Amino acid sequence: MTLLTFGETPLRFAPADGGQLHTAREMRVYADGTESNAAAAAAAMGGEGVWVSKLPDTPLGRRVVSELRRYGVDTAVAWTDGRRQGLRFEEAGVRPREGTTLQDRSGGAMAAVEPDDLPMDELRAADAVFTGASTLALSGKAADTAAAVFEATRGTAITAATDLDLQPGLCSAADARAALDRLSGAVDVLVASEDDAAAVLDAGGGARELVTAAADEFDLELVVITRSERGALAMHDTPGTNVVHERAAVETETVDPAGGHAAFVGALLQRLVDGADVADALSYGVAAGALARTVPGPYLTADRAELDRVVEESVDEPR
Amino acid sequence: MTLLTFGETPLRFAPADGGQLHTAREMRVYADGTESNAAAAAAAMGGEGVWVSKLPDTPLGRRVVSELRRYGVDTAVAWTDGRRQGLRFEEAGVRPREGTTLQDRSGGAMAAVEPDDLPMDELRAADAVFTGASTLALSGKAADTAAAVFEATRGTAITAATDLDLQPGLCSAADARAALDRLSGAVDVLVASEDDAAAVLDAGGGARELVTAAADEFDLELVVITRSERGALAMHDTPGTNVVHERAAVETETVDPAGGHAAFVGALLQRLVDGADVADALSYGVAAGALARTVPGPYLTADRAELDRVVEESVDEPR
Amino acid sequence: MTLLTFGETPLRFAPADGGQLHTAREMRVYADGTESNAAAAAAAMGGEGVWVSKLPDTPLGRRVVSELRRYGVDTAVAWTDGRRQGLRFEEAGVRPREGTTLQDRSGGAMAAVEPDDLPMDELRAADAVFTGASTLALSGKAADTAAAVFEATRGTAITAATDLDLQPGLCSAADARAALDRLSGAVDVLVASEDDAAAVLDAGGGARELVTAAADEFDLELVVITRSERGALAMHDTPGTNVVHERAAVETETVDPAGGHAAFVGALLQRLVDGADVADALSYGVAAGALARTVPGPYLTADRAELDRVVEESVDEPR
Amino acid sequence: MTLLTFGETPLRFAPADGGQLHTAREMRVYADGTESNAAAAAAAMGGEGVWVSKLPDTPLGRRVVSELRRYGVDTAVAWTDGRRQGLRFEEAGVRPREGTTLQDRSGGAMAAVEPDDLPMDELRAADAVFTGASTLALSGKAADTAAAVFEATRGTAITAATDLDLQPGLCSAADARAALDRLSGAVDVLVASEDDAAAVLDAGGGARELVTAAADEFDLELVVITRSERGALAMHDTPGTNVVHERAAVETETVDPAGGHAAFVGALLQRLVDGADVADALSYGVAAGALARTVPGPYLTADRAELDRVVEESVDEPR
Amino acid sequence: MTLLTFGETPLRFAPADGGQLHTAREMRVYADGTESNAAAAAAAMGGEGVWVSKLPDTPLGRRVVSELRRYGVDTAVAWTDGRRQGLRFEEAGVRPREGTTLQDRSGGAMAAVEPDDLPMDELRAADAVFTGASTLALSGKAADTAAAVFEATRGTAITAATDLDLQPGLCSAADARAALDRLSGAVDVLVASEDDAAAVLDAGGGARELVTAAADEFDLELVVITRSERGALAMHDTPGTNVVHERAAVETETVDPAGGHAAFVGALLQRLVDGADVADALSYGVAAGALARTVPGPYLTADRAELDRVVEESVDEPR
Amino acid sequence: MTLLTFGETPLRFAPADGGQLHTAREMRVYADGTESNAAAAAAAMGGEGVWVSKLPDTPLGRRVVSELRRYGVDTAVAWTDGRRQGLRFEEAGVRPREGTTLQDRSGGAMAAVEPDDLPMDELRAADAVFTGASTLALSGKAADTAAAVFEATRGTAITAATDLDLQPGLCSAADARAALDRLSGAVDVLVASEDDAAAVLDAGGGARELVTAAADEFDLELVVITRSERGALAMHDTPGTNVVHERAAVETETVDPAGGHAAFVGALLQRLVDGADVADALSYGVAAGALARTVPGPYLTADRAELDRVVEESVDEPR
Repeated sequence: MTLLTFGETPLRFAPADGGQLHTAREMRVYADGTESNAAAAAAAMGGEGVWVSKLPDTPLGRRVVSELRRYGVDTAVAWTDGRRQGLRFEEAGVRPREGTTLQDRSGGAMAAVEPDDLPMDELRAADAVFTGASTLALSGKAADTAAAVFEATRGTAITAATDLDLQPGLCSAADARAALDRLSGAVDVLVASEDDAAAVLDAGGGARELVTAAADEFDLELVVITRSERGALAMHDTPGTNVVHERAAVETETVDPAGGHAAFVGALLQRLVDGADVADALSYGVAAGALARTVPGPYLTADRAELDRVVEESVDEPR
Repeated sequence: MTLLTFGETPLRFAPADGGQLHTAREMRVYADGTESNAAAAAAAMGGEGVWVSKLPDTPLGRRVVSELRRYGVDTAVAWTDGRRQGLRFEEAGVRPREGTTLQDRSGGAMAAVEPDDLPMDELRAADAVFTGASTLALSGKAADTAAAVFEATRGTAITAATDLDLQPGLCSAADARAALDRLSGAVDVLVASEDDAAAVLDAGGGARELVTAAADEFDLELVVITRSERGALAMHDTPGTNVVHERAAVETETVDPAGGHAAFVGALLQRLVDGADVADALSYGVAAGALARTVPGPYLTADRAELDRVVEESVDEPR
Repeated sequence: MTLLTFGETPLRFAPADGGQLHTAREMRVYADGTESNAAAAAAAMGGEGVWVSKLPDTPLGRRVVSELRRYGVDTAVAWTDGRRQGLRFEEAGVRPREGTTLQDRSGGAMAAVEPDDLPMDELRAADAVFTGASTLALSGKAADTAAAVFEATRGTAITAATDLDLQPGLCSAADARAALDRLSGAVDVLVASEDDAAAVLDAGGGARELVTAAADEFDLELVVITRSERGALAMHDTPGTNVVHERAAVETETVDPAGGHAAFVGALLQRLVDGADVADALSYGVAAGALARTVPGPYLTADRAELDRVVEESVDEPR
Repeated sequence: MTLLTFGETPLRFAPADGGQLHTAREMRVYADGTESNAAAAAAAMGGEGVWVSKLPDTPLGRRVVSELRRYGVDTAVAWTDGRRQGLRFEEAGVRPREGTTLQDRSGGAMAAVEPDDLPMDELRAADAVFTGASTLALSGKAADTAAAVFEATRGTAITAATDLDLQPGLCSAADARAALDRLSGAVDVLVASEDDAAAVLDAGGGARELVTAAADEFDLELVVITRSERGALAMHDTPGTNVVHERAAVETETVDPAGGHAAFVGALLQRLVDGADVADALSYGVAAGALARTVPGPYLTADRAELDRVVEESVDEPR
Repeated sequence: MTLLTFGETPLRFAPADGGQLHTAREMRVYADGTESNAAAAAAAMGGEGVWVSKLPDTPLGRRVVSELRRYGVDTAVAWTDGRRQGLRFEEAGVRPREGTTLQDRSGGAMAAVEPDDLPMDELRAADAVFTGASTLALSGKAADTAAAVFEATRGTAITAATDLDLQPGLCSAADARAALDRLSGAVDVLVASEDDAAAVLDAGGGARELVTAAADEFDLELVVITRSERGALAMHDTPGTNVVHERAAVETETVDPAGGHAAFVGALLQRLVDGADVADALSYGVAAGALARTVPGPYLTADRAELDRVVEESVDEPR
Repeated sequence: MTLLTFGETPLRFAPADGGQLHTAREMRVYADGTESNAAAAAAAMGGEGVWVSKLPDTPLGRRVVSELRRYGVDTAVAWTDGRRQGLRFEEAGVRPREGTTLQDRSGGAMAAVEPDDLPMDELRAADAVFTGASTLALSGKAADTAAAVFEATRGTAITAATDLDLQPGLCSAADARAALDRLSGAVDVLVASEDDAAAVLDAGGGARELVTAAADEFDLELVVITRSERGALAMHDTPGTNVVHERAAVETETVDPAGGHAAFVGALLQRLVDGADVADALSYGVAAGALARTVPGPYLTADRAELDRVVEESVDEPR
């Protein structure tokens, strides 16, 4: 099965020695975008992960592609001159020092993407398609092109998914809301953390209230809420009934939290398209998210056998 | 406001890879002295931090100055030929292995400092002045010159402070006691850990007994006891009444404990001179000490906004 | 006193930055074998540690010797052409990711060792001799030569010891059992973890049952069971009575678990040969195992004074 | 166009800090095989590079694939259990110290490759096919399978190529000779250094005599001799006439000589299959070989534009 | 004496291990701008170096200031929100591979600088003032503000200087020409490489023709042409006569070419303001440029004594 | 054969990244003393190298011993409390920047060595004994003890040697002269560079004049002058005739010049004691000195086979 993802993948720069952005002598560089990370997770699961994007034709743009290839992602890139590679600078927090994220995306190539840049052959071959709300928040062009991606894959892809991934300076709750409104009817799966869902839906209550509210409002088949150390919860809106599945979190020693959310998304979608039921897909999402956090960098580097093992060891009863 | 500090700043060598002194291939080097660290903390708070000292005119001596400058300290140094740069070798403990500190200060330039080396312009511009007991323990000349610093700033500086910072091989309880005796009447603020205070005062009881004993014996206006994970306590000896303030500790993931004490001192004094009350100054001291422990190296690298945030989040009621 | 050890010492390769074998750019290399590590521990205790082995005459073989020398081990090596240096690739686990050990020993020089390779002078000078079961599992020649080592030192050495150290792909429970059967009567001390002992003896019950079963079955004077965070237990089979000694574990922040078992063995044997009683030897074994885990690499780098201190602080009453 | 390559790709371990194998604390790891490097060069040229091989299903085997993917190579691998990943240890020489290469290939997965492991779809899609003589020297099975590769692509691929790449402990002149004899008639292009050609052909004279001798003896269409700092020379055996082309070397600051030969091969073949004439292909081979030497690691990391520039700047007249 | 400089200082990112931008795992970061480097050189000479600029109030902006302080520069910065820190990505060339410079300055804080941002006290205290043509090329606002700097210091500063430092993607010959035209009459010293001068003046002939042409056209007192391995040449346009001075280059092993030009400028101006004659200033410029190239990073880290020594050893006769 | 050496071995600290002492973040540490390096060279030659010294009983002192052991040296150390480990800080020069050596030896343990510290068993077992002039220059006690070493080995050792190794801040020409005078009659071999010999003998002329002058004045059997890129020259003063041998230098790419002189001394003496003639010993000295310069650190890491090869390839005719 093939998961096609569409989005911007910035280069993330982080102090090489666990230090701070304003003092670090060296910085470690990763290509780190939600959509490409999700594609890498699908590949780690044994499927095909494709990433569609627009990049500047510079060494920085080219390194995004070669780094993604290393982690099993196939890429379909529209190259451009005259725009920047998006960057993100990140410093991990150490209590009571807060972490810092500095988005440096203005003028990026993806903000200028247009539907004509889309690789139609790749789109038609997709079994599932995913683009996150923060990609739609990049620019009007990015939002139009994301909509065109969902339009083009309607009818061929089994599943169309988006997420809410609020990031200060990149995607506010209002941005995400606008993205969801625009995609309403075009996507059938939504993945969001509990906090982000609450902020975007402006809804109170717990995770169960949120999944119901989201499913109703945006006409979604499946809403998944991730809850950090409390695991995840999914509501499957099947004709006549709504089933809610829960999975406890997998105990995790986090080495680098980056990529946990995206690995969750990629593994979940890969299982869904492979025909697994929601409970199973949720288990793989949780396991993938945990494993991605155990390595430096945002990629899911586990192979399928290890994912199977973690799922097996961690499955608990649906409640 | 300007905090002037006077003391020796050794270069600290520590295994680069978290290893041991007797096997490490490479060692990380820091200029790390209580007084200069306190000056860096005052600068991080938004004030001016000045460090007065004597250094050998060698590459090692010069690196002390350029490193301190990076962290915002202004320096007034008497350069000398024919004496050493003081060193300290340190290996962190990992239970049950004990840490190791190897002082290598003999023959250092500061032990030969003399009152004539003092920069009178800098002294006159100081709003607060600080030198630690271990500086007085270096040599008779160092003690004489420290006394001359306090003498020269009497009348212009608002506050004159010292500390007790016992260090095996450098400053014993007896050394510290002698230093305090000598400074009695010349300083009005004392900062010490509970253990060091108990050792030097040879007093039993808890922190409250210690502050009272110290204030009485050395005619101090303000005595501050730091208590690691139990926070800090200050007794303010105002005419007619003694007020005791307590602050709980800030929960801290310690990356490098070096510099925590000095950041406490620097931030506390900066607030006092800025006119803050003791309770407020104590809060900033605690916050600065915690933040300094979250980075490799002994410097307070947080800026004022981050300090304000930690203070705000952590303030509890005085008891 | 002199502890002579006989075994294979592979080079261990581990990702240099805490990463994974399939992505790490650099790998850290250690000479890491149970027997040579035990010899290093004996040297750290203040005794003499000798390691007897066969190595390929290549840069990789030679680095084993020079690395062991650094940690105080004397070596007696038979050099050979045409065989490999044994290797082991290791990646630490991070929950829920499991660690990985990849044995790459086939064709190694030690599998071709023969009794004629043995340095008779070194053997005759030994006060204690140790070779582990996994060395016997390498090949028939290795087993024959190990038996020859015990034969040659019978009568001169005070103590002859072996262990059970099951390692997937290297030494199974059946291999270890065969080794024990072969050595039965030739060794008088056995050290094993609780799990390994249970697997090899195919015995149920707790540690106390295991020591009794092992002592009986293999005619051993002393059986020691290591129990990780629950410490260690030894049964001393003296004429007329069996005494069981227990030691609680020493609280340990583990930096690298490698070498903990071997340090335990080396320190225990060193003490026994020095004439200490079993309770004392057990305390040193536990302390050495803990200290070896606090440093990167498999060596016990503590000196005797530090070992004495940890023993003193940790001794509890025999139960 | 697609260049399919078949061969073993060992992991190369080299001291990380320019030191020596017997003292280096860390080693840098690269997947470094002639055939996969040639495929990477074809990809860098803008073509498709495919690498067919057999690997152990271990983290070491998997890293070969992910590393090759990063450099643009598509892989078709038969995975196996129970055999090793081939290794090579290398230490660069520094005058008068000689470099060291330690082959550690025994028991490798590729030595057990069989024709049934071959991916027939990949073979049929190849425009050119390449396997080196040292692959045939690995084992009888490897030689048989290489012959099967050439057999399977006869008729579909435009060009079938091999090389002579003598490596002590891996492929002697006699081994290479046997390989050439076996492939005679099945390949039409041979690339070899002047020294290797002389050793294998046991022929005197200069490069021109060697190309003639090789072409005659093995019924080759194109023989290319690489001559280090004297460039390269090719004899094109067209009906009725033999044309000899020469290219001067490109001045090169060598950072890592690894991969220079393979980049030459890959770029040369890519140009030939794209329909370029021999003179042009030779120029690209020389440029690619030079550029591959300017980076750490064995890959050609230049893009086509840079290759075009170097070719343009360096082309001289055929002599 | 005080050299005040005004310009943008981007952070330079370069592969940490001498590799390439599209493959490097880590990048080394330096604050590296012509004007701030010149200020650092003035400080190294024993003078005062001040840098005036506008920076974003982010960790990246703040690191520019703390890094410059380390190298002795005093800073006067207007902080702003909502704009970027300018970046530059650089990969060194290795023959025949060309180096790469990727300017990433769009949206930078300095492009929005305005005369109101200028610190008038600092300007009035300057003995010399320097801003390069590429700063004027950043934006209209930058050019206006640079002009305001020269206006404000007219009458108090002894010397006003600019340079031509053409950088692809940042400052073309036309940009530099426009800058020079705008500053004509406001500056009296110009420093340029021979190539840049020829390109901007569109003049043929050698260095002597260029200095004459420049002096005439822009009404300059002193024109200095740097000629890499051929040293430097200056024409001093004094009333009634033009004197040309030449200095041979100092033999240099270049570790990092960055900062060589700026060190030349800073040392030259420091000497001129100190009252040295042009020949002497030229010697110090050449020495400073050479010494700055011997260290990683763009700073002149030599002290005055070392500069004096190099000048002394290298002075040759004016021709 | 056994070469016994007596001297101080300081820890050398050098910037880890080729930078400068006043800016380097990390420093690389080596135990680096002439006498211990010479012992390591004797061990590399296949002999026994012993180093006798006095060290502080600190982690720094202990690392000297463990590091020397790694390179094959046996040690006989008198441990002491209350004195320092001698240090040396070194920064390599890069033209036109000069290198820097900062001796930090005052208060070192070896300066307090006394004849009673000498291990008489080790002394009696020596075939050759070596201590350098700079050891005698450390202190009166060091000189007395060195004299006692030569006294104690007279009659048992075949050869007694010293050198002249002038080092600013450690051993001046006058110091070396005094040392030579004191040892006159007690040593029979002297090794010195041409410059040092000229300075100490205050003699003009070339190397041939210097060897004659030295042999005459100090009653030496063998005087060896090392001449860097011009090789070395030895005068053998045998009864009735003086033979002069010359060896050309071996072409060397120097990675770290440290240890070249000492490796020369150690290899030369090892050969002499093994019964080789002076010409042969000189060849090995030259080869060892060259090979020691090809690795980071001061040790001769080559093995005997590599030394034999270099000697064989480099031998030229005596002139």
